[in-house]
Amino acid sequence: MPGSLNVFPSQLTRFVRCYSVAAESIPAAKKKYVPSEGTYPLGFKASGILVGVKPGNTTKPDLALISSDRPCAAAAVFTKNKFQAAPVTFSRDVLKKKGNQGIRSVLINSGCANAVTGKGGLEDASLMARAADETVGNSEDGSSTIVMSTGVIGQRLPIDKIIKNVPAAHDVLGSSHKDWLACATAICTTDTFPKLMSKTFTLPSSPGVEYRIAGMTKGAGMIHPNMATLLGVAATDAPISPTVMPTVLKQAVDRSFNSITIDGDTSTNDTVALLANGAAGGKEIRSEDSPDFAAFQEVLTDFAVDLAKLIVRDGEGATKFVTIRVTEAASEDAARKIASTIARSPLVKTALYGRDANWGRILCATGYSLISEPGHAVAEVPEIIPENTNVSFIPTDGTAELKLLVNGEPELVDESRASEILELEDLEILVRLGTGGKEATYWTCDYSHEYITINGDYRT
Amino acid sequence: MPGSLNVFPSQLTRFVRCYSVAAESIPAAKKKYVPSEGTYPLGFKASGILVGVKPGNTTKPDLALISSDRPCAAAAVFTKNKFQAAPVTFSRDVLKKKGNQGIRSVLINSGCANAVTGKGGLEDASLMARAADETVGNSEDGSSTIVMSTGVIGQRLPIDKIIKNVPAAHDVLGSSHKDWLACATAICTTDTFPKLMSKTFTLPSSPGVEYRIAGMTKGAGMIHPNMATLLGVAATDAPISPTVMPTVLKQAVDRSFNSITIDGDTSTNDTVALLANGAAGGKEIRSEDSPDFAAFQEVLTDFAVDLAKLIVRDGEGATKFVTIRVTEAASEDAARKIASTIARSPLVKTALYGRDANWGRILCATGYSLISEPGHAVAEVPEIIPENTNVSFIPTDGTAELKLLVNGEPELVDESRASEILELEDLEILVRLGTGGKEATYWTCDYSHEYITINGDYRT
Repeated sequence: MPGSLNVFPSQLTRFVRCYSVAAESIPAAKKKYVPSEGTYPLGFKASGILVGVKPGNTTKPDLALISSDRPCAAAAVFTKNKFQAAPVTFSRDVLKKKGNQGIRSVLINSGCANAVTGKGGLEDASLMARAADETVGNSEDGSSTIVMSTGVIGQRLPIDKIIKNVPAAHDVLGSSHKDWLACATAICTTDTFPKLMSKTFTLPSSPGVEYRIAGMTKGAGMIHPNMATLLGVAATDAPISPTVMPTVLKQAVDRSFNSITIDGDTSTNDTVALLANGAAGGKEIRSEDSPDFAAFQEVLTDFAVDLAKLIVRDGEGATKFVTIRVTEAASEDAARKIASTIARSPLVKTALYGRDANWGRILCATGYSLISEPGHAVAEVPEIIPENTNVSFIPTDGTAELKLLVNGEPELVDESRASEILELEDLEILVRLGTGGKEATYWTCDYSHEYITINGDYRT
Repeated sequence: MPGSLNVFPSQLTRFVRCYSVAAESIPAAKKKYVPSEGTYPLGFKASGILVGVKPGNTTKPDLALISSDRPCAAAAVFTKNKFQAAPVTFSRDVLKKKGNQGIRSVLINSGCANAVTGKGGLEDASLMARAADETVGNSEDGSSTIVMSTGVIGQRLPIDKIIKNVPAAHDVLGSSHKDWLACATAICTTDTFPKLMSKTFTLPSSPGVEYRIAGMTKGAGMIHPNMATLLGVAATDAPISPTVMPTVLKQAVDRSFNSITIDGDTSTNDTVALLANGAAGGKEIRSEDSPDFAAFQEVLTDFAVDLAKLIVRDGEGATKFVTIRVTEAASEDAARKIASTIARSPLVKTALYGRDANWGRILCATGYSLISEPGHAVAEVPEIIPENTNVSFIPTDGTAELKLLVNGEPELVDESRASEILELEDLEILVRLGTGGKEATYWTCDYSHEYITINGDYRT
């Protein structure tokens, strides 16, 4: 969680994360996830500067600006949390009013979530957007800016400080890797490393045209489907019609950002946005039935999955990256619910931390994932048949599958083999339900002492 | 969790709980929850002996027997987990075949859950019951014994050892406090203290007759609605018709054992049983509309709530006992779901551990408690209106309420006052929704480093 440090019981003072990550503070083990170069979409520029949203912050960039030299088609997926932060309400309205087009900029601050701040907070979000519009030189027919905020809940933004600095953020906009990395760094909170990716792709209708997509995200704690304290932005120079933008983004997010969990909590600010400015030319993607749409859907989904995985890599206190695959399911909903339940189970997550091949806990989580609420009649749950259920560890070093449960009967587990597999940072838990042909995949991490330390320590 | 100790990474070796509690090992702070005397129901006897279900266990009682000198009306509530342990399947069948009557004994072992053990496990459960029936001298028309098991999943019971020792358990049956305490101790796993209660009551129709009820439970980890690795037995000498037993027990369990959570996990073995032998005489409770039924419902519910609270007191690693009340709700279901979601939130539970008045996390949990699953349309959730929502800490020392959120607007929180309240072991979080007249109460504990240690360390 983002937040100021409060000093509490002594066992909590093993303090490991500072507010907003700086390049020099990236843990050695995480450096490999931070790119040293990239190819960025034409017509977009990015910057990240220090504003000092948190009074104590005098070193870490905390205001990020992404701007296009021309209007973009844009879409966003927002948190479903009933307590939606002001920037969520504001940005949703902007996209609605503008019909998913005419967007030029995304302005993001870390350090304060502008959540549960009432009417004043909404005005602040609007003032941020207007400052960006005026600076970028585009304020006709309503705002052309989407805003996002992440950080402490229930506090007003230092709005004057932010507005005053928007021109400075605009002045240092650039299209180099350094500029995009500064931008990705500025949106971080308790993240230990900035999460930035870029890649190139082509579309069937214009094989000669190279397109680029770049994206960034931030996460750490409070991540679960419906996205939580999670921000994400992707920008592409491919030409995409506003009418198909919401569909392509929603499908990508459901299979990526909505398929990861750190602690199962879901917050007030989460937003993932996609901008397309068409600067690379080529034929516009207009129909959801076109080969171009299908191709871009795949590109965007894979890209979003890779971005989302970076968040799990950086889960608060995480020592493991765990893929949970539920296959042979009667429905994708059932597979999702079971994968999600295993991914959230504190007992599964602590066992993983303890390097314990504890299939019993995996089975328990599977067994209660679809049951009815207390006080309600027992649900039949035909999606799960104990005698059909198989649970295995799939090693990520290419060695053989370790079967833990076969057709509902426990295997005699080779503990030393299990320990070998569990020593690896990456692990796949495979649950075969044997009741159908659907499947779902979740990505999660373990619960460690550090998770307790971080979250016992912080004020969100 | 019950289970054998595996040695794992060094930070996990701070080992705090041993398998099955012994009187001399009860933490000083928990001693006040263990009664030094009691009044026990007529006609019932109890015992707890050492069998060594776990080969390593040479000191802790692990076989418990409760037996009535006459047939009892009986009912039980079982886990909804799809992977139900053999004793659950067996005992459910017994109660069904016998029409909730003709039960004489409850035989419980700790150390092995007899779960995910296939047909062999079912035979073992049946052999346990037959051993008790033969020893008690009652085996006509099917079993008169309910069996329960708790401990490691996926391992067969040392059934010969158990059967061989049932006569010994029978020989030491007694009706003294010492006997009931030994029985309550024998069902413990990672519990740090035995959970035993007894009280007397009267019923409107026979004011001159004094009735007794005694009960025991075990829990520690993996506790959540639908009960988890939780066993409970209550025995009364009041005369209750078999036909009303299931109703009275279910209503009591929904407001007690199904309203507590430690880690949100739910397991394969949980069972709460009620036996009534009528040994105290008086008028039998036959109708759910009778004043006697209402009176006994209240007695049993209060009794079950007090027993359930002992489990939260002993939550693995728990340093706090937290009551979560959700009031002014549109429906009891909504109130329950919201209370349950707050009670399960790792971010809320770690904040409580950190003595952090983090209403933002409480609000977040409230805000996502009723939202739709990823990939599903946004649910309207009329049960929550941000502007109507109030969140307060209710101190348990009788001092004034501390308002954190008033009608959706954050209060300026007096941190020193908040810290005072959070230093107390007991705390109530009150969420007023302002959308109706229903309410629900949950009891939970915090997440500590010890929770991670215990559950990273154990093999369930």
